[in-house]
Amino acid sequence: MIRKAAECKKEYRENMRGGNGTVELTSFASPAELYDKGRLFANITLKPGCSIGYHVHEKDSELFYLMKGEALYNDNGVECVLSAGDVMICPVGTGHSIANNGQEDVEICAVIVYA
Amino acid sequence: MIRKAAECKKEYRENMRGGNGTVELTSFASPAELYDKGRLFANITLKPGCSIGYHVHEKDSELFYLMKGEALYNDNGVECVLSAGDVMICPVGTGHSIANNGQEDVEICAVIVYA
Repeated sequence: MIRKAAECKKEYRENMRGGNGTVELTSFASPAELYDKGRLFANITLKPGCSIGYHVHEKDSELFYLMKGEALYNDNGVECVLSAGDVMICPVGTGHSIANNGQEDVEICAVIVYA
Repeated sequence: MIRKAAECKKEYRENMRGGNGTVELTSFASPAELYDKGRLFANITLKPGCSIGYHVHEKDSELFYLMKGEALYNDNGVECVLSAGDVMICPVGTGHSIANNGQEDVEICAVIVYA
Protein backbone atom coordinates (compact mmCIF):
# COMPACT_ATOMS: atom_id res chain seq x y z
CA MET A 1 0.00 0.00 0.00
CA ILE A 2 1.26 3.43 -0.97
CA ARG A 3 0.65 6.59 1.00
CA LYS A 4 1.89 9.59 -0.95
CA ALA A 5 3.50 12.38 1.08
CA ALA A 6 0.51 14.67 0.55
CA GLU A 7 -1.87 12.00 1.89
CA CYS A 8 -0.06 11.58 5.20
CA LYS A 9 -1.96 13.04 8.14
CA LYS A 10 -0.30 16.19 9.44
CA GLU A 11 -0.80 17.69 12.88
CA TYR A 12 0.55 20.84 14.46
CA ARG A 13 0.97 20.68 18.22
CA GLU A 14 1.51 23.83 20.24
CA ASN A 15 3.75 23.66 23.32
CA MET A 16 3.97 19.89 23.05
CA ARG A 17 4.65 18.33 26.46
CA GLY A 18 5.29 21.86 27.75
CA GLY A 19 7.84 22.65 25.06
CA ASN A 20 8.21 25.81 22.99
CA GLY A 21 6.53 26.74 19.72
CA THR A 22 4.86 24.41 17.27
CA VAL A 23 5.77 20.83 16.46
CA GLU A 24 4.81 19.40 13.07
CA LEU A 25 3.93 15.72 13.17
CA THR A 26 3.41 13.80 9.91
CA SER A 27 1.99 10.34 10.56
CA PHE A 28 3.07 7.52 8.23
CA ALA A 29 0.91 4.72 9.61
CA SER A 30 -2.00 4.13 11.97
CA PRO A 31 -1.68 1.93 15.06
CA ALA A 32 -3.67 -0.74 13.15
CA GLU A 33 -1.11 -0.60 10.34
CA LEU A 34 1.51 -1.24 13.04
CA TYR A 35 -0.54 -4.29 14.11
CA ASP A 36 -1.02 -2.53 17.44
CA LYS A 37 2.60 -3.31 18.32
CA GLY A 38 3.13 0.42 18.52
CA ARG A 39 1.30 3.68 18.09
CA LEU A 40 3.57 5.91 16.04
CA PHE A 41 5.70 5.90 12.91
CA ALA A 42 6.08 9.54 11.93
CA ASN A 43 8.18 12.49 10.91
CA ILE A 44 8.54 15.10 13.63
CA THR A 45 9.78 18.49 12.50
CA LEU A 46 11.01 21.14 14.93
CA LYS A 47 11.64 24.57 13.51
CA PRO A 48 14.41 26.66 15.12
CA GLY A 49 13.40 27.59 18.68
CA CYS A 50 10.84 24.80 18.97
CA SER A 51 10.95 21.87 21.38
CA ILE A 52 9.10 18.92 22.90
CA GLY A 53 9.20 19.19 26.69
CA TYR A 54 10.50 16.55 29.07
CA HIS A 55 8.18 13.61 29.62
CA VAL A 56 8.44 10.02 30.79
CA HIS A 57 7.28 7.07 28.68
CA GLU A 58 5.19 5.03 31.10
CA LYS A 59 3.91 2.24 28.88
CA ASP A 60 5.92 2.39 25.70
CA SER A 61 9.34 3.12 24.25
CA GLU A 62 10.15 5.87 21.76
CA LEU A 63 12.97 5.71 19.25
CA PHE A 64 14.18 8.71 17.26
CA TYR A 65 16.40 8.75 14.19
CA LEU A 66 17.73 12.26 13.59
CA MET A 67 17.44 12.79 9.84
CA LYS A 68 18.36 16.46 9.68
CA GLY A 69 19.65 19.30 11.85
CA GLU A 70 21.25 19.50 15.26
CA ALA A 71 19.19 18.70 18.34
CA LEU A 72 19.63 19.35 22.05
CA TYR A 73 18.42 16.11 23.63
CA ASN A 74 17.76 15.34 27.26
CA ASP A 75 18.32 11.62 27.71
CA ASN A 76 16.63 10.76 31.03
CA GLY A 77 18.30 13.71 32.74
CA VAL A 78 21.53 13.95 30.76
CA GLU A 79 21.79 16.64 28.07
CA CYS A 80 23.67 16.11 24.82
CA VAL A 81 23.88 17.63 21.36
CA LEU A 82 23.10 15.31 18.48
CA SER A 83 23.62 15.46 14.74
CA ALA A 84 22.05 13.87 11.69
CA GLY A 85 22.44 10.09 11.75
CA ASP A 86 22.30 9.79 15.54
CA VAL A 87 19.71 7.60 17.27
CA MET A 88 17.92 8.20 20.59
CA ILE A 89 16.14 5.42 22.47
CA CYS A 90 13.82 6.20 25.37
CA PRO A 91 12.88 2.85 26.97
CA VAL A 92 9.75 2.45 29.08
CA GLY A 93 10.07 4.16 32.46
CA THR A 94 12.61 6.73 31.26
CA GLY A 95 12.17 10.29 30.03
CA HIS A 96 13.38 12.62 27.32
CA SER A 97 13.01 16.02 25.73
CA ILE A 98 14.27 17.46 22.47
CA ALA A 99 14.89 21.03 21.36
CA ASN A 100 16.03 22.77 18.23
CA ASN A 101 18.41 25.53 19.27
CA GLY A 102 20.04 25.61 15.83
CA GLN A 103 19.43 27.57 12.66
CA GLU A 104 17.97 24.86 10.43
CA ASP A 105 14.96 22.58 10.91
CA VAL A 106 15.35 19.42 12.96
CA GLU A 107 13.69 16.40 11.33
CA ILE A 108 13.24 13.15 13.20
CA CYS A 109 11.83 9.80 12.18
CA ALA A 110 10.05 8.56 15.31
CA VAL A 111 8.73 5.13 16.28
CA ILE A 112 6.79 4.23 19.43
CA VAL A 113 6.46 0.54 20.37
CA TYR A 114 4.61 -0.84 23.37
CA ALA A 115 6.82 -2.31 26.10
CA MET B 1 20.10 6.01 25.46
CA ILE B 2 22.12 7.55 22.66
CA ARG B 3 23.57 5.64 19.76
CA LYS B 4 25.81 7.91 17.71
CA ALA B 5 25.72 7.43 13.93
CA ALA B 6 29.18 5.85 13.92
CA GLU B 7 28.09 3.28 16.54
CA CYS B 8 25.14 1.98 14.53
CA LYS B 9 25.73 -1.49 13.13
CA LYS B 10 26.21 -1.39 9.35
CA GLU B 11 25.78 -4.34 7.01
CA TYR B 12 26.28 -4.65 3.29
CA ARG B 13 24.06 -7.20 1.58
CA GLU B 14 24.82 -8.39 -1.94
CA ASN B 15 21.91 -9.24 -4.24
CA MET B 16 19.44 -8.86 -1.40
CA ARG B 17 16.34 -10.97 -2.02
CA GLY B 18 17.64 -11.54 -5.55
CA GLY B 19 18.07 -7.84 -6.28
CA ASN B 20 20.98 -6.05 -7.94
CA GLY B 21 24.17 -4.71 -6.41
CA THR B 22 24.80 -3.94 -2.77
CA VAL B 23 22.31 -2.72 -0.17
CA GLU B 24 23.61 -0.79 2.84
CA LEU B 25 21.65 -1.41 6.01
CA THR B 26 22.30 0.71 9.11
CA SER B 27 20.51 -0.70 12.15
CA PHE B 28 19.21 1.78 14.73
CA ALA B 29 17.90 -0.66 17.32
CA SER B 30 17.98 -4.35 18.21
CA PRO B 31 14.81 -6.47 18.37
CA ALA B 32 15.14 -6.33 22.20
CA GLU B 33 15.17 -2.52 22.02
CA LEU B 34 11.93 -2.83 20.04
CA TYR B 35 10.53 -4.97 22.90
CA ASP B 36 10.32 -7.82 20.37
CA LYS B 37 7.33 -6.09 18.80
CA GLY B 38 9.36 -5.93 15.63
CA ARG B 39 12.77 -6.80 14.29
CA LEU B 40 13.97 -3.76 12.35
CA PHE B 41 14.33 -0.01 12.64
CA ALA B 42 16.99 0.96 10.13
CA ASN B 43 18.26 3.10 7.29
CA ILE B 44 18.40 1.26 3.98
CA THR B 45 20.50 2.92 1.29
CA LEU B 46 20.33 1.87 -2.35
CA LYS B 47 22.94 3.35 -4.65
CA PRO B 48 21.94 3.94 -8.30
CA GLY B 49 21.36 0.60 -10.02
CA CYS B 50 20.82 -1.30 -6.77
CA SER B 51 17.64 -3.02 -5.64
CA ILE B 52 15.99 -5.38 -3.16
CA GLY B 53 14.22 -8.17 -5.03
CA TYR B 54 10.57 -9.08 -4.72
CA HIS B 55 9.67 -11.01 -1.58
CA VAL B 56 6.57 -11.71 0.47
CA HIS B 57 6.34 -10.86 4.19
CA GLU B 58 4.98 -14.05 5.73
CA LYS B 59 4.98 -13.19 9.43
CA ASP B 60 5.51 -9.47 9.67
CA SER B 61 4.78 -6.15 8.03
CA GLU B 62 7.37 -3.76 6.64
CA LEU B 63 6.92 0.00 6.43
CA PHE B 64 9.21 2.28 4.42
CA TYR B 65 9.51 6.04 4.61
CA LEU B 66 11.36 7.35 1.56
CA MET B 67 13.75 9.98 2.92
CA LYS B 68 15.72 10.69 -0.24
CA GLY B 69 15.77 9.90 -3.93
CA GLU B 70 13.30 8.38 -6.36
CA ALA B 71 12.41 4.69 -6.07
CA LEU B 72 10.74 2.19 -8.36
CA TYR B 73 8.52 0.21 -6.00
CA ASN B 74 6.56 -2.95 -6.64
CA ASP B 75 3.57 -2.89 -4.32
CA ASN B 76 2.31 -6.49 -4.24
CA GLY B 77 2.44 -6.70 -8.04
CA VAL B 78 1.77 -3.08 -8.98
CA GLU B 79 4.72 -0.90 -9.98
CA CYS B 80 4.96 2.78 -9.12
CA VAL B 81 7.55 5.51 -8.90
CA LEU B 82 7.91 7.19 -5.52
CA SER B 83 9.58 10.35 -4.28
CA ALA B 84 10.94 11.62 -0.99
CA GLY B 85 8.20 11.85 1.64
CA ASP B 86 6.18 8.90 0.30
CA VAL B 87 5.34 5.91 2.50
CA MET B 88 5.11 2.22 1.52
CA ILE B 89 3.34 -0.34 3.69
CA CYS B 90 3.72 -4.06 3.01
CA PRO B 91 1.24 -5.86 5.30
CA VAL B 92 1.71 -9.50 6.27
CA GLY B 93 0.97 -11.87 3.36
CA THR B 94 1.83 -9.31 0.69
CA GLY B 95 5.03 -8.67 -1.24
CA HIS B 96 7.22 -5.86 -2.44
CA SER B 97 10.47 -4.92 -4.14
CA ILE B 98 12.32 -1.64 -4.46
CA ALA B 99 14.87 -0.42 -6.98
CA ASN B 100 16.93 2.68 -7.50
CA ASN B 101 16.89 3.45 -11.21
CA GLY B 102 17.73 7.12 -10.59
CA GLN B 103 20.94 9.11 -10.42
CA GLU B 104 21.09 9.83 -6.69
CA ASP B 105 21.06 7.50 -3.69
CA VAL B 106 17.74 6.23 -2.38
CA GLU B 107 17.49 6.38 1.42
CA ILE B 108 14.68 4.69 3.29
CA CYS B 109 13.78 4.55 6.94
CA ALA B 110 12.42 1.02 7.44
CA VAL B 111 10.42 -0.55 10.25
CA ILE B 112 9.36 -4.20 10.55
CA VAL B 113 6.66 -5.10 13.08
CA TYR B 114 5.29 -8.58 13.76
CA ALA B 115 1.73 -9.17 12.58
